[in-house]
Amino acid sequence: MTDATAFVPGHVTAFFTVDRDETDPTRTGSRGAGLAIEDGVEITVTDAADRQVWLDEEEISMPAVETVLDTLNADVAVHAESDVPLGRGFGVSGAMALGTALATNTVLERDLSMNELITIAHGAEVQAGTGLGDVVAQAAGGMAVRMEPGGPQHNYIDAVPARPRIEYHTSGELSTEDVLGAETAMITQAGAQALSSVVSEPRPETVVYAGRRFAREAGLLTERVKETITDVTSNGGEASMAMLGETVYALDSGLSDAGYDAHQTRVDPAGARLR
Amino acid sequence: MTDATAFVPGHVTAFFTVDRDETDPTRTGSRGAGLAIEDGVEITVTDAADRQVWLDEEEISMPAVETVLDTLNADVAVHAESDVPLGRGFGVSGAMALGTALATNTVLERDLSMNELITIAHGAEVQAGTGLGDVVAQAAGGMAVRMEPGGPQHNYIDAVPARPRIEYHTSGELSTEDVLGAETAMITQAGAQALSSVVSEPRPETVVYAGRRFAREAGLLTERVKETITDVTSNGGEASMAMLGETVYALDSGLSDAGYDAHQTRVDPAGARLR
Repeated sequence: MTDATAFVPGHVTAFFTVDRDETDPTRTGSRGAGLAIEDGVEITVTDAADRQVWLDEEEISMPAVETVLDTLNADVAVHAESDVPLGRGFGVSGAMALGTALATNTVLERDLSMNELITIAHGAEVQAGTGLGDVVAQAAGGMAVRMEPGGPQHNYIDAVPARPRIEYHTSGELSTEDVLGAETAMITQAGAQALSSVVSEPRPETVVYAGRRFAREAGLLTERVKETITDVTSNGGEASMAMLGETVYALDSGLSDAGYDAHQTRVDPAGARLR
Repeated sequence: MTDATAFVPGHVTAFFTVDRDETDPTRTGSRGAGLAIEDGVEITVTDAADRQVWLDEEEISMPAVETVLDTLNADVAVHAESDVPLGRGFGVSGAMALGTALATNTVLERDLSMNELITIAHGAEVQAGTGLGDVVAQAAGGMAVRMEPGGPQHNYIDAVPARPRIEYHTSGELSTEDVLGAETAMITQAGAQALSSVVSEPRPETVVYAGRRFAREAGLLTERVKETITDVTSNGGEASMAMLGETVYALDSGLSDAGYDAHQTRVDPAGARLR
């Protein structure tokens, strides 16, 4: 086969913890919850003489993708097209790492299993510092609830059995690396509390509500995000901040009802798959 | 909400083991591999005064569905429409149990998580004797490889990262209850061997090839099935028997290439989901 294409849903993290294992990146990760969405990233891998990585017609360097390609010993061309922007809380780097792993395995006939590919992509994201829970949630699809951290051999994932419509509105970037690289004790404390709310009431509204409290308690809200969330909630909607970007997401038509120009999507039930 | 609809893919089991825990149905199950397919069952649950279960315009009694409704304390009407026939190795009873659990949870706002609903449906199938591994594979979607048996709290599921086109041809029913109720040591021995082939080479062709050897070694082939498989393989295709029915499935166009009138479908990547 000379090329293969994978689709990986975007992932909006509602809340999270930081659970590090100093020796093993596949045991490092996060607990938390989020929404895999139908807006995502399509990744095409082509057998090629030199390695190249493109995102939306621009050649880029993405450490997690490089690590995946190193692990698979692959010199291939990776062309990604994304419905969602990079650096704004949609898990684009996780999607690219996972989609690259899936499509490269097919093109080069590496004979790895799904969980092996997820583990490679998860470990690469952790090492790059660009994400802790996106890859495993993007592999699962739906509204994953990450009960235990790490790759598929170590984690335990449940889900909220629902598929709501979602809107999102983005106003700026935030650096996941900066947040994960700083002190994270408050984040983990607030994330664990949010997780226990969702476990006791696994509903979409609870995910968004618990995420809103998490964002406030963990000190991650920006002024612009806070204002947009208030506009939606004071209009009777449910909204919160996507971790990590200056992005607000809402259930149903919460953002457009409050007068915002918003993208419409829906929870994607399938998770990462080959086209 | 007065009604909700779930779709659950059909599941063709390629091979399996029988792993019983005498005290706990959620630890009972099977290891093995199979294919979730886009032909499946759509289950609509409506809030109603009396309990009713319909499959394709016919009122039926299905023990696994009854147990699910008992567990959820639910008097509802269940209307199912299936693309695939009952009793022929497509996991229709598992699909109905799981789809009923998902849709009933939504209609009656039972606030259970996805894994709790899968556990209820899996336990109900095990108790009814109509399946051991369909429900967890149908929840996962794709080409699930069940490495450890049981419900989601106990099992471990990997997958073959591929989404081949599939054909199937069915000529008669077999009783899962009869096979699972008899001596199963040979089945489990052959199933464990097939599993280790797929683990070392997680490809669609290996799943089908290992399934064919399993069917022969476990003594499950009927004359009609054996003849159809031979027709496909001697024509260069890959085919095996669906567990448990007089049904042959093939990769790509293996059956129609060999002159059979076959249904076309594809591996479904998503697993059970609300519509």
